[in-house]
Amino acid sequence: MSDAFTLDPRLEAESFPLGRLELCEARLFNDARFPWLILVPARAGLVEIIDLDAAGQQRLMMEVALAAGALRSATRCHKLNVAALGNQVRQLHVHVIARFETDAAWPNPVWGRGARVPYAPPAAAQLAQQMRTAMELR
Amino acid sequence: MSDAFTLDPRLEAESFPLGRLELCEARLFNDARFPWLILVPARAGLVEIIDLDAAGQQRLMMEVALAAGALRSATRCHKLNVAALGNQVRQLHVHVIARFETDAAWPNPVWGRGARVPYAPPAAAQLAQQMRTAMELR
Repeated sequence: MSDAFTLDPRLEAESFPLGRLELCEARLFNDARFPWLILVPARAGLVEIIDLDAAGQQRLMMEVALAAGALRSATRCHKLNVAALGNQVRQLHVHVIARFETDAAWPNPVWGRGARVPYAPPAAAQLAQQMRTAMELR
Repeated sequence: MSDAFTLDPRLEAESFPLGRLELCEARLFNDARFPWLILVPARAGLVEIIDLDAAGQQRLMMEVALAAGALRSATRCHKLNVAALGNQVRQLHVHVIARFETDAAWPNPVWGRGARVPYAPPAAAQLAQQMRTAMELR
């Protein structure tokens, strides 16, 4: 736990950096089918939410709420999905996903629905900028 | 929002009551394939986590952590999955699921993996009692 935090390589490869919150690195998952944020608490060795101390858990909830509100405002989605799974990437990370009743997986969860569809770069940049502004990320 | 809280009928039909926390009704989902708790904030009209006020969000995190710790201690699971989805049942509810590298869905999420396998009643009663004790539910 004294080691420095480093982002999991798979999370890094599959998402774009948005910026840093007090606890988490905020990322935009690179799948144009679903507007999808990932929050990664930037502390080494975390796997479960309950690996965070109580203050860290509370901070995580605040940052999840911030991300969820920003994503809903930007996308006007029908539903938010929030999840910490970690069956494939063990490093603790929280998915915050904007869902639409017309999306490629509705009403099922988004995971395991075939290959990611990477964004066209301008679309990713536009959504990333909206998220940075809404979340007051620098 | 002034209406009284009533549990969604589908959640009620698919799970057993465990007891009441300060915010949430705690339930055991009736699927013997996965030890699976559901927390339902007992306030009328909630759909999203961000429909809760900040104090409610913080309380929800505390109760999620309590449930997760109890479930992990009782099952010695390999991973916890925590999620608020709500694509099918809109009433806000949080899944807290014990996962094993040998379970019927690993490493995928548990949703959409075919029909539930109801517990034999003694097995449900035993796990429910373990959960009530660990979560100090009355």
